[in-house]
Amino acid sequence: MNTPALSTQIQLVSRPVGWPTESDFRTVSVELPELAPGQLRVQNLFLSVDPYMRGRMNDARSYVAPYQLGETMTGGAIGRVVESAAEGFSVGDVVLHQFGWRDLVQEDASGFRVVPELPGVPLSAYLGVLGMTALTAYVGLLEVAKFREGDTVFVSGAAGAVGTMVGQIARLKGAKRVIGSAGSAEKVALLTEKYGYDAAFNYKDGPVTEQLAAAAPDGIDVYFDNVGGEHLEAAIDAFNDGGRAALCGVISQINDTERAEGPRNLSNIVTRGLTLTGFTVGNYTQHFPAFSGEMGAWLQNGDVVFDETVYEGLDHTLDAFLALMRGANTGKMVVKL
Amino acid sequence: MNTPALSTQIQLVSRPVGWPTESDFRTVSVELPELAPGQLRVQNLFLSVDPYMRGRMNDARSYVAPYQLGETMTGGAIGRVVESAAEGFSVGDVVLHQFGWRDLVQEDASGFRVVPELPGVPLSAYLGVLGMTALTAYVGLLEVAKFREGDTVFVSGAAGAVGTMVGQIARLKGAKRVIGSAGSAEKVALLTEKYGYDAAFNYKDGPVTEQLAAAAPDGIDVYFDNVGGEHLEAAIDAFNDGGRAALCGVISQINDTERAEGPRNLSNIVTRGLTLTGFTVGNYTQHFPAFSGEMGAWLQNGDVVFDETVYEGLDHTLDAFLALMRGANTGKMVVKL
Repeated sequence: MNTPALSTQIQLVSRPVGWPTESDFRTVSVELPELAPGQLRVQNLFLSVDPYMRGRMNDARSYVAPYQLGETMTGGAIGRVVESAAEGFSVGDVVLHQFGWRDLVQEDASGFRVVPELPGVPLSAYLGVLGMTALTAYVGLLEVAKFREGDTVFVSGAAGAVGTMVGQIARLKGAKRVIGSAGSAEKVALLTEKYGYDAAFNYKDGPVTEQLAAAAPDGIDVYFDNVGGEHLEAAIDAFNDGGRAALCGVISQINDTERAEGPRNLSNIVTRGLTLTGFTVGNYTQHFPAFSGEMGAWLQNGDVVFDETVYEGLDHTLDAFLALMRGANTGKMVVKL
Repeated sequence: MNTPALSTQIQLVSRPVGWPTESDFRTVSVELPELAPGQLRVQNLFLSVDPYMRGRMNDARSYVAPYQLGETMTGGAIGRVVESAAEGFSVGDVVLHQFGWRDLVQEDASGFRVVPELPGVPLSAYLGVLGMTALTAYVGLLEVAKFREGDTVFVSGAAGAVGTMVGQIARLKGAKRVIGSAGSAEKVALLTEKYGYDAAFNYKDGPVTEQLAAAAPDGIDVYFDNVGGEHLEAAIDAFNDGGRAALCGVISQINDTERAEGPRNLSNIVTRGLTLTGFTVGNYTQHFPAFSGEMGAWLQNGDVVFDETVYEGLDHTLDAFLALMRGANTGKMVVKL
């Protein structure tokens, strides 16, 4: 039945300077018209909040276009079809899409992909362990950093959605030693007790360079960088010859209003023949089938575990995003509607 | 005839702090005994001075061991056999070797390689355009930075021994545009008039980022870094998506006593999917045959030209090395004995 409806949506109204605040956003109520042919109406169940969104709030050249002022925010989301005027989609279907930061979506069906409901796996997993987040870990480790069996791997932000996956994938692929850093004693404990890390430390306990040297007495071969800053400098100090870094994010500097200083030991890059490669998962989606196959099997076998941090309610989406920026999550941060 | 002889040699006696000075070295006279079986005695004709030597003067982990205090310095050199007690080597042979910073060498023949005397090509070319210097340019551009036809290439320290080769090889391999920076108006003129650069600027004339943006309005795809520092930051600002840097040296910081700050725009590495790879030519010598073939042909066809800056006399070796550090050379810096 084709009915009008109200959609509550969060829009960006000014570009944050430094940390985003409530005043940079507004919540609006949008009346959805009757469905046009080819459209779906979807009730969102879970919204993803991700670090890359901070970059899109700036009006800067980046790998994806900036969010437009006065328009509704977008981002990964999973929902259920409530009305369909498109072939191949039925009411009740679970769909993955990019129309987040709103409760009700109405768009052309081409923007949605039906996904199966897997027994024992929450639908939010499509935003994390079965989605772009874990794909980021997979391609960053295997394709970008060119991980090889026997490598010692260091992961910063290791308790985050990406970091928890990197450690487990490295372990499953035959790492010699996997070391993680995180920002609380609880997270550090999780890394070694739950996520298969051989060693972990709290970067707030002391200089990263010293803690990493203690945790990796034989140096590191691969660094998966989720944070930038002091961690990157420490990794460049710890690298063995031929070391490779996959740079995935600079969350430590993402809200800086001035350009942060870079690592002061770049001469090591030359003398040790290091490679630093930045990447964004959007350029590696061709590996999704391989990833899906391996990750699906690991999940079914219980070889991979995951955490989620869940905020409830669309009106807490910004809170969830800011908490993510502060590192208040363990595993994937999602908003449940 | 087997005779004793005196060899004048330069030794490192203290590790320089910052810029090396005369007092860090001493000149000694060493009496060479009669030749032992398997040895050669070689009169050096040209000595190479190279930026990497500064790193070896420190007692630091690097890709080659530090120079030892109280021992004679080493480095690339070309000389002529004056006595031979080794099969396959005759008096008069021209030999390439690593026993520099001395006038007369006596060592096992395994450390020497006989090279042909080519008509019209000075023997010093084996230290530059036919040697490791030009191989550095060749592998850095083609293997490390993975240059592709149609790329726009930026080279810092472009008037140096390596930089003049990078520009010419990029041009011969089909670069869209080749841009160089150097430290004087004379060098800048040479880059465009002699070395095939499309554009060049004096980095002392203004901020590198601004000058590079003006010279490369469509951005750059490859950066060959001979200097580090401000140039690297400027390149990271100018890179197109997927840009690749080969980091060959950090001469701008090589004598710093404190760790220099790194580039403040590393977030571009993530957002633009950039790759920075450091290298030292010693790990790429497997490409020497391919290099020799191509470079030999280019030289014979007049497709590649080169400059040398020649200091005369073993007692000016340190002067030559310090002048190289200051960028006083155009092309390869050598010492003629």
